[in-house]
Amino acid sequence: MNGKAFQDHYPDELSHCYGCGRNNPDGHRLKSYWDGESTIARFRPEAHHVALPGYVYGGLIASLIDCHGTGTAAAATARAQGRDLGSEPPLRFVTASLQVDYLAPTPMGEELELRGEILEVSGRKAVIEVTVRAAGEIRARGRVVAVLMPEGMKSR
Amino acid sequence: MNGKAFQDHYPDELSHCYGCGRNNPDGHRLKSYWDGESTIARFRPEAHHVALPGYVYGGLIASLIDCHGTGTAAAATARAQGRDLGSEPPLRFVTASLQVDYLAPTPMGEELELRGEILEVSGRKAVIEVTVRAAGEIRARGRVVAVLMPEGMKSR
Repeated sequence: MNGKAFQDHYPDELSHCYGCGRNNPDGHRLKSYWDGESTIARFRPEAHHVALPGYVYGGLIASLIDCHGTGTAAAATARAQGRDLGSEPPLRFVTASLQVDYLAPTPMGEELELRGEILEVSGRKAVIEVTVRAAGEIRARGRVVAVLMPEGMKSR
Repeated sequence: MNGKAFQDHYPDELSHCYGCGRNNPDGHRLKSYWDGESTIARFRPEAHHVALPGYVYGGLIASLIDCHGTGTAAAATARAQGRDLGSEPPLRFVTASLQVDYLAPTPMGEELELRGEILEVSGRKAVIEVTVRAAGEIRARGRVVAVLMPEGMKSR
């Protein structure tokens, strides 16, 4: 987890995401990094991110998988194209579909470790598998199908 | 959307969910209701619930689908068993899996309408399809496999 996070390469105007935008002071500001051929992010849920007492809210877990997935999609696409993640035009991916299997309850009070594996990368689309581990055990497994942000989305 | 929301029947000690718990002041406090044979919830995203400028954060959409799905699972199970949703033992469902397809970008500044359809209900498990509509168009479609909360989860 050295160096600059994937999300810190996004241009300023595309960095307001509630899950991972550095310019969203109310958001989660998830940070994703390379770890060899896979990617990693760590996150510590806050006290209000609860589902039932003692357990982390599944919607937060889905959100983190989503953002780690789209961040990994951008980084993997940059790597496959031999270009810097921060180079123009921006590699900003959005989610086409998200699947999350909740394998075990996720205890509160633990740091979550998200690990991304690149299943497919083809320029405009990437498929990323993300596992979420807490207290040494895999708690959720997700799959993100990410697509390059449509041109029209930049203009709003 | 008359009467008491599904989530307002949950016992106090199981009402802290970040997505729909009435006892979580920092959460979304989603409220779900019957609408004939389907279920409905409405939610207005806040300014910080943004993905890219002008568009709603997909993780929020996934979270709302999740909570409307588990709420619908509880209500549908109560109805199938001919019992009141607030009766003992509590019908509190957790998510086994969540699938969301993002069909179109969701514009900010619009109320979201979530509609749940009951695909399967069998006592300990329910499968719910949830569509999310904004500005008259379906933006996302999700499927929630919900299971009755394991006994062990109550004791933490």
